[in-house]
This record gives sequence, C-alpha cells and structure tokens, in this order.
Amino acid sequence: MDDRAAVIAANDRFYRAFEARDLEAMSRVWSCTDGDACIHPGWEPVYGSEAVMEAWAGIFSTGMPMKFLVSDVVVQLLGDLARVHNVENIRFGDGEPIGRVAVTHLFIRRPSGWRLVLHHGSPIAAENEATPRAREPEYH
Amino acid sequence: MDDRAAVIAANDRFYRAFEARDLEAMSRVWSCTDGDACIHPGWEPVYGSEAVMEAWAGIFSTGMPMKFLVSDVVVQLLGDLARVHNVENIRFGDGEPIGRVAVTHLFIRRPSGWRLVLHHGSPIAAENEATPRAREPEYH
Repeated sequence: MDDRAAVIAANDRFYRAFEARDLEAMSRVWSCTDGDACIHPGWEPVYGSEAVMEAWAGIFSTGMPMKFLVSDVVVQLLGDLARVHNVENIRFGDGEPIGRVAVTHLFIRRPSGWRLVLHHGSPIAAENEATPRAREPEYH
Repeated sequence: MDDRAAVIAANDRFYRAFEARDLEAMSRVWSCTDGDACIHPGWEPVYGSEAVMEAWAGIFSTGMPMKFLVSDVVVQLLGDLARVHNVENIRFGDGEPIGRVAVTHLFIRRPSGWRLVLHHGSPIAAENEATPRAREPEYH
C-alpha cells in the first residue's frame, strides 16, 4: 500500500472507531503521545493523549451513536507527516442528516503506520453549504 | 532567532495582518501554493492560494475590523513543519469581547522563513469555556 492509500486507510479507521464507539480502536488510531491534540466542534482544544482519550470516552458514553458519510477528502503528504481534510456528513443512527463538519487531520509516520496527532472539527453553517467544494491541492 | 521564536513571530504576523486588513501582509504570511488551506469558522474548507486570498479579501472588505487577543499558544516543531494552536479572543474595534475561536495553524519552513499552509478556526461555545486550558505538549 502506498503512503497515500495508507493515510486514507488510517483516516477511515478513525471514522469506524468513532461510529463503533470503540475506545480501544480509537486509541490505536492515535499516536498516543503528549503531542496529540483534539478540537471538537465548539470545544476548547484538548492536549495530550490522556486528555484526548478521556474526551473520546465522554463522547462515546453520551448521546446517540453517529454515522459519518465522509466526503471531500483531500490528502497532502509532507514527508513523515500527512494532512487530511474532509467533510463529515453526520446523522444519528439511520436518521436524516443532522449537519456537516469540516475536518483537519494530521497524521505522523510511525514504524507501526500512520498515527493521528490532530483532529480538528468545525461545524459548517447551513448558509455556507453552497460555497465551492474541496479540490485536490498539488503536493509540495 | 530559534525555530520556536520564528514560528511564534510568523503566527503574530498573521494576526497583525488580520487586524490591519492588509491583504499584501497576509499574503506574505502564507506559503502561497496550491497546498494552502483555510477553514474559517462556519465555512467549508477553502483550498489553494488563489481561493484562500480571495476569501481574505472578502473578509477584509466586510463587517467591522476585529482585534485579537491571542492566548493559550502551543507550538510543536515537527522538522520542517510547525503546528501552532491558540485561542483567539475577539472583539470588534475597542468593544467588548464577542467570542473565542480555537485555532490550528500549520507552518512550513521555506528558505524565506516559516510560511502558513493551514488556518483552521472553530468557535468555542460559551458553555464550554470552563473546560481545561491549553498546556504545552512534549515535542516528538
């Protein structure tokens, strides 16, 4: 698998862990270092693996399970780092879509594979949904 | 100036350009490549230097000038990349604070200095303002 495909696979594992509310699978997605950072929609930044995983535990234990249709995926390889942007099209269970979130993911290359060091999600306001969609940037 | 100080100086130039609504100064902050990406609060992602600068031109030409008190600055050096998180405490002109935005910045090292390739800002909901503040992560 080439780097780009490996990064996309790691990005997919993030969403499968999120949908399954599987804390162990989610921890395997992350680098699990003090450099981990997470900014959930509406939240202050959360720093460090322990706090990041605590936040996921909280999210997984409340509310309804969410499903994600991931669109507008843009991958940029930057040596041992990879940046992914995508849009989360979210619904609760099998219900209607409840909103869209613009995401930045930053992965770092580890001997064991690409690991997440940043998740930053921000709600897309309904009135902005007609703005131009993602296109693939050139690699540096 | 060491890398960390140079990154913080580049981050500060971003906010001075933003406050001054100075499009030329803002363009000097960015890498100005197709890899540039910007996610403003509530927006879809915007990709590529041309679209990113068009978006800034739009922001600078409407509404009231904003002032930024930047807090909770966290810098992480990752080789030729640097990640900055901070919180923008925003007010219009000399008025009262109007809100806080959690930010991810990604800078890339160029011969001319550190240049911005990503700005991602997301509003912090008022009810979340009591959550723990930033602490410095360990370097990788």
